[in-house]
Amino acid sequence: MLLLDFFCPSAHPTDSPKSVLIVNKLRTKPVLDAIHAFLAHIRLRYPHVRVYHPDSGSVADGVDLWQPSEPDHKIDLVITLGGDGTILHASSLFKVGAVPPVLSFSMGTLGFLLPFHVDDFGRALESVFNGSATVLYRMRLACEFFGKHGEKCNDENNSQDWQVMNEVALHRGSSPHLNTIDAFVDGQHLTEAVSDGLIVSTPTGSTAYSLSAGGPIVHPSLSAIVLTPICPRSLSFRPLVFPASSSITLRIGDRSRAPAGVSMDGQVARVLHPGESITVRASAHPIPCINRSSLATSPTVGSEGVPPGKEDDWVRDINNLLQYNATFRSKALTAHHNRN
Amino acid sequence: MLLLDFFCPSAHPTDSPKSVLIVNKLRTKPVLDAIHAFLAHIRLRYPHVRVYHPDSGSVADGVDLWQPSEPDHKIDLVITLGGDGTILHASSLFKVGAVPPVLSFSMGTLGFLLPFHVDDFGRALESVFNGSATVLYRMRLACEFFGKHGEKCNDENNSQDWQVMNEVALHRGSSPHLNTIDAFVDGQHLTEAVSDGLIVSTPTGSTAYSLSAGGPIVHPSLSAIVLTPICPRSLSFRPLVFPASSSITLRIGDRSRAPAGVSMDGQVARVLHPGESITVRASAHPIPCINRSSLATSPTVGSEGVPPGKEDDWVRDINNLLQYNATFRSKALTAHHNRN
Amino acid sequence: MLLLDFFCPSAHPTDSPKSVLIVNKLRTKPVLDAIHAFLAHIRLRYPHVRVYHPDSGSVADGVDLWQPSEPDHKIDLVITLGGDGTILHASSLFKVGAVPPVLSFSMGTLGFLLPFHVDDFGRALESVFNGSATVLYRMRLACEFFGKHGEKCNDENNSQDWQVMNEVALHRGSSPHLNTIDAFVDGQHLTEAVSDGLIVSTPTGSTAYSLSAGGPIVHPSLSAIVLTPICPRSLSFRPLVFPASSSITLRIGDRSRAPAGVSMDGQVARVLHPGESITVRASAHPIPCINRSSLATSPTVGSEGVPPGKEDDWVRDINNLLQYNATFRSKALTAHHNRN
Amino acid sequence: MLLLDFFCPSAHPTDSPKSVLIVNKLRTKPVLDAIHAFLAHIRLRYPHVRVYHPDSGSVADGVDLWQPSEPDHKIDLVITLGGDGTILHASSLFKVGAVPPVLSFSMGTLGFLLPFHVDDFGRALESVFNGSATVLYRMRLACEFFGKHGEKCNDENNSQDWQVMNEVALHRGSSPHLNTIDAFVDGQHLTEAVSDGLIVSTPTGSTAYSLSAGGPIVHPSLSAIVLTPICPRSLSFRPLVFPASSSITLRIGDRSRAPAGVSMDGQVARVLHPGESITVRASAHPIPCINRSSLATSPTVGSEGVPPGKEDDWVRDINNLLQYNATFRSKALTAHHNRN
Ligand SMILES: NC(=O)C1=CN([C@@H]2O[C@H](COP(=O)(O)OP(=O)(O)OC[C@H]3O[C@@H](n4cnc5c(N)ncnc54)[C@H](O)[C@@H]3O)[C@@H](O)[C@H]2O)C=CC1
Ligand SMILES: NC(=O)C1=CN([C@@H]2O[C@H](COP(=O)(O)OP(=O)(O)OC[C@H]3O[C@@H](n4cnc5c(N)ncnc54)[C@H](O)[C@@H]3O)[C@@H](O)[C@H]2O)C=CC1
Ligand SMILES: NC(=O)C1=CN([C@@H]2O[C@H](COP(=O)(O)OP(=O)(O)OC[C@H]3O[C@@H](n4cnc5c(N)ncnc54)[C@H](O)[C@@H]3O)[C@@H](O)[C@H]2O)C=CC1
Ligand SMILES: NC(=O)C1=CN([C@@H]2O[C@H](COP(=O)(O)OP(=O)(O)OC[C@H]3O[C@@H](n4cnc5c(N)ncnc54)[C@H](O)[C@@H]3O)[C@@H](O)[C@H]2O)C=CC1
Repeated sequence: MLLLDFFCPSAHPTDSPKSVLIVNKLRTKPVLDAIHAFLAHIRLRYPHVRVYHPDSGSVADGVDLWQPSEPDHKIDLVITLGGDGTILHASSLFKVGAVPPVLSFSMGTLGFLLPFHVDDFGRALESVFNGSATVLYRMRLACEFFGKHGEKCNDENNSQDWQVMNEVALHRGSSPHLNTIDAFVDGQHLTEAVSDGLIVSTPTGSTAYSLSAGGPIVHPSLSAIVLTPICPRSLSFRPLVFPASSSITLRIGDRSRAPAGVSMDGQVARVLHPGESITVRASAHPIPCINRSSLATSPTVGSEGVPPGKEDDWVRDINNLLQYNATFRSKALTAHHNRN
Repeated sequence: MLLLDFFCPSAHPTDSPKSVLIVNKLRTKPVLDAIHAFLAHIRLRYPHVRVYHPDSGSVADGVDLWQPSEPDHKIDLVITLGGDGTILHASSLFKVGAVPPVLSFSMGTLGFLLPFHVDDFGRALESVFNGSATVLYRMRLACEFFGKHGEKCNDENNSQDWQVMNEVALHRGSSPHLNTIDAFVDGQHLTEAVSDGLIVSTPTGSTAYSLSAGGPIVHPSLSAIVLTPICPRSLSFRPLVFPASSSITLRIGDRSRAPAGVSMDGQVARVLHPGESITVRASAHPIPCINRSSLATSPTVGSEGVPPGKEDDWVRDINNLLQYNATFRSKALTAHHNRN
Repeated sequence: MLLLDFFCPSAHPTDSPKSVLIVNKLRTKPVLDAIHAFLAHIRLRYPHVRVYHPDSGSVADGVDLWQPSEPDHKIDLVITLGGDGTILHASSLFKVGAVPPVLSFSMGTLGFLLPFHVDDFGRALESVFNGSATVLYRMRLACEFFGKHGEKCNDENNSQDWQVMNEVALHRGSSPHLNTIDAFVDGQHLTEAVSDGLIVSTPTGSTAYSLSAGGPIVHPSLSAIVLTPICPRSLSFRPLVFPASSSITLRIGDRSRAPAGVSMDGQVARVLHPGESITVRASAHPIPCINRSSLATSPTVGSEGVPPGKEDDWVRDINNLLQYNATFRSKALTAHHNRN
Repeated sequence: MLLLDFFCPSAHPTDSPKSVLIVNKLRTKPVLDAIHAFLAHIRLRYPHVRVYHPDSGSVADGVDLWQPSEPDHKIDLVITLGGDGTILHASSLFKVGAVPPVLSFSMGTLGFLLPFHVDDFGRALESVFNGSATVLYRMRLACEFFGKHGEKCNDENNSQDWQVMNEVALHRGSSPHLNTIDAFVDGQHLTEAVSDGLIVSTPTGSTAYSLSAGGPIVHPSLSAIVLTPICPRSLSFRPLVFPASSSITLRIGDRSRAPAGVSMDGQVARVLHPGESITVRASAHPIPCINRSSLATSPTVGSEGVPPGKEDDWVRDINNLLQYNATFRSKALTAHHNRN
């Protein structure tokens, strides 16, 4: 059964990759330089690997344009270069079916979804090619849209097949009025929400928009679905955490004073009008993210003196990036600082 | 000094009104019927009173069109018929200067800002005309807008002179990206907010949008300004309550990824771009709202058996309307209900 | 692997029970009457079943005193009569090892953990004896205590073997000072909490103390561990949700100004002093709770017109008992009520 | 009227002090050294000033034991040395009537209530003696206790005359059960709270216990009373902010399962049993705290390059000490840190 696979800390991406897709959003000089260094390194060390890029404008020497429809353009490894948004973008390139293992590099900044610093790319690639890399399967959510009469309804963007990594968010957008949304879980009516909107989030997305809206922080290795309201007109609306086997339906109330814009991982996908609905459930295609602990064999140590393989990237991130439970500042320190 | 006057439970609107402005938003039959009944009653009981209406299309026999610019169109009493939105609308008709005492009637539904049921209009008017009515001065906020270089900048709506009763809300609207807003209090930098937006609210508005965003409930007789973030990307952004003497400036960060739409009492007023700012402070013109306790002389009692003059409408409203601290339901009752 | 079993909506308690343990906390007349009715019913319908009671003082005719140590005192079914506290008590009677299926009856009031009304006992028992009853495996947490030097340390209560159904809560109790607790997840330091205390909760317990402290509501069929702070001196401490495979260690800081009392499902178990710690993880013995949907075959319908078998008790409970997202009250109704 | 005086940013403690009371809680070497330095300095610069200490054991040469009852032991200035707890302690020494202006020094650490670093004592004293010091009147709360039948009831601690600076907190303490408390405002029933307890806080106390329990941050120059629940068994209990003219009564419910311990500024005062109550209102004796901006004339600048007189200590403190809205850490910085 699928769900059992979600967390396989010791799972290894099988076999040595034969084709690599490079994904970037920004085209700044550091990003382009990094791509060049990658290409040179791959050609030298893994000469049989084919390298693809999704964007024709960016295809360099020795890089092929990736056309997902072509049968021999199967990708064994995705490499992202940029911020968290770049990995969300990579996920969206594979929004319809399965997604290959993803190796993400930050460009000198850390992000929540970015285990590796770009300077570590040699060792990171090695761990993948020699089979020692481990993977965190990050759950994705799949969506279906329905019309007023319950009929399945596609749109030109095919947003109904869009699998998200962070969340599906419904929001009143620039409407001055609140919207009314009926939420159902496994077909049973859960509640009627009068609010700015609702977020259906993965554990990965629990540190993104859901967190800002007041949601709990959920470890990404848990299989669960989080429902978080955005500015509800109710004192008693709390975030809910469901098993990944649940299906959540959000239906715009017939008398909702506003429609709801649907954002998928931050990209505006479409607008739902009164009577229309979306059903969200765990997708069959989680995104296999290569762990930072894959570098464990390395002799270098992390900033806190702990070998990276021993630590959970997530614990590090909620402390370093979110400043989780930052205690009221060591006061002596502050005083000292103030006096100098 | 003005602020001292904000709460004058025993203040009486001076003298017997000579001119009345009727304000309604909806034009449903019950509303129109109620207006007719009002007119008939006023003509009979207070024949010297002139009645105005702000909307030429609605002017009936014996009602004059109100033209704020005409010197002899001074209004001594505003009567609103409708929901909370109608009283916000009445406030906006006097958005520039002072506002006369407001007597608000609900059309059979209760609202937060609506002390009287339309069926009580005879007694309510009497209390005003015989001088026994008491008033709650609800604070309003006044705004000024500034351009990138700190220059005061008007717009075609003259939104800078708009006094609000609930709140000024800045929001990213339909932009997919968060905005960055620097908040200053009395000119001192308070914080940089990366969020969906910020709300500067009156105590009256503390039960409106600010409440949905997580703000505290502030009694309307307190003179204070509440700053509440909307979905901030920070774990440690809490609502703040300032004295009414504070001025709050919100400036869109130069590198904000989104502009901010400005809503005033729910009406979209304008958009602020990076570098532009708004300064909000207590206005000199609170809105004098006639209290439900004005009916105290009446022998009838409220639903809880307490004479209305003895109770604070606000305590009743947070319990009845917001279901404040609704205790987990009396379980025996539920059981009983379930079994029948 | 154990975790896979946590939610088996279609699991049936095997075989027809041969021994039943009756558990009650209160000894009021309605409870004693109900026990009599039970006994009469069982003797008549299931004459071969042996009935036990844990309390010698309460042993009635035809009821044996239950002595857990005696090998032939194996229990096939636990029946509880009372409130939520009674089922917590039943769980504590089996705090060391596995617990038989539990059938809980409320005495005319509903509770979160109480699917059946006492008047339904005939049909409820029948569904168990005829094998049609379904079970929700509610996760429990197991605890181990450690001394200052990491040595495992028992106490006279053997609290270290105590499996809890709701939560383990550490609290400063009546100490005027905050305590300092280091929290670790899977051995990795997570955070240092300066607070009134910390709660480690099951999904079942997420609607108990954790909810009051601000935690999310977690569906009981999810396998997860919730960590919720109690009044932390930090703006940025949020509830965390971990996979059930995690182990959470809470260690009183060496310089903590207060010790921490440990409550297990609301029972005070012991006090932890600076340097001492507790480790909490999912226990191997969840508690099999017989679902209300076991009555599905019945022709009667629930209060909302939905056959009970179709609905999830939990959705009903968070709405009916917690008044989840109670919308601001239908105002017309309130008005009506007020006027009569 | 008293309330108008609460915030007098330009108020100056009248006249040059003739008697000074030194208050410390800790007796560590740095504290004792600081006291010696103070004494030497005062003797040299202000030889006519009499110096008192409340604790006979600590009376040094030239220091008199302070006996509040003696008429000529009137104090013109209180000097505190230590943490926030020391100024709370100073307040409690004057818990019955008025309190003289307070000049608080931190011992090298900053605190919320501590404007001055001990090294600045010369300049700070000068500003007081030359009349340039300005004062923030921090509101205090006064309490009265009542028995089951509404009779005023003293206790041996005379806690009913105790004025608090932070808060009065009612808490179940080490009772395993929740307590039930009826809250009244100005005699009107507000709500029934089933919870761990309730906090009635001043704006000063809004950054203390109330903050940990989820309360808003209220500027200390506002006159207001904050009611914050501690772990309520309700989804819809929000913090409330009342005008300073309100009186709040908390009465332990007749069927409360637990009594409530009363803590006043963190000191356990007494226990309230079912039927007993406490009434809290703004006291007539706020505590005049000398502002850090009193050093404004000094040429030195604060750590942020702003002359101290220009900044509001409170804005500095919520940022520096509470790390208010600490934005998710500058990621480039973190990355840099991690890589070195
Ligand atoms: N008020 C808010 O907090 C809002 C948040 N968002 C989030 O932005 C995401 C889109 O990200 P971008 O395309 O990069 O837009 P963006 O460039 O506007 O960045 C959003 C921020 O969220 C961070 N982020 C993204 N995924 C994250 C995760 N799983 N955990 C922690 N932080 C994460 C990014 O690092 C970035 O700082 C959406 O999926 C949504 O979650 C979108 C709108 C409003
Ligand atoms: N997510 C949210 O809670 C949002 C709330 N609003 C609020 O709506 C207000 C505009 O109201 P309408 O024109 O009637 O729009 P609307 O017809 O969309 O109604 C908003 C709701 O807020 C209630 N309301 C208005 N003022 C209130 C107050 N002071 N206390 C308690 N409830 C109050 C109204 O009774 C109504 O139920 C804005 O001033 C803003 O406060 C606006 C947008 C989003
Ligand atoms: N401030 C708070 O909310 C506190 C809550 N508690 C809770 O009380 C529990 C002990 O219960 P009792 O022995 O009955 O003590 P009790 O008789 O004091 O009742 C506590 C209340 O919690 C309810 N409850 C128990 N388990 C629940 C669950 N899983 N979901 C929803 N409601 C639940 C009960 O129905 C009862 O209303 C503890 O496990 C703890 O969770 C204990 C202390 C403080
Ligand atoms: N869970 C919590 O947050 C609890 C907080 N307290 C607070 O502790 C206070 C007593 O303080 P101490 O005697 O020093 O006890 P303490 O030595 O235990 O210190 C409590 C902490 O609160 C800080 N503090 C005190 N007043 C403050 C204020 N007005 N604003 C910001 N921080 C403040 C102190 O600097 C110290 O860090 C009580 O008045 C109460 O507010 C007491 C119990 C629990």
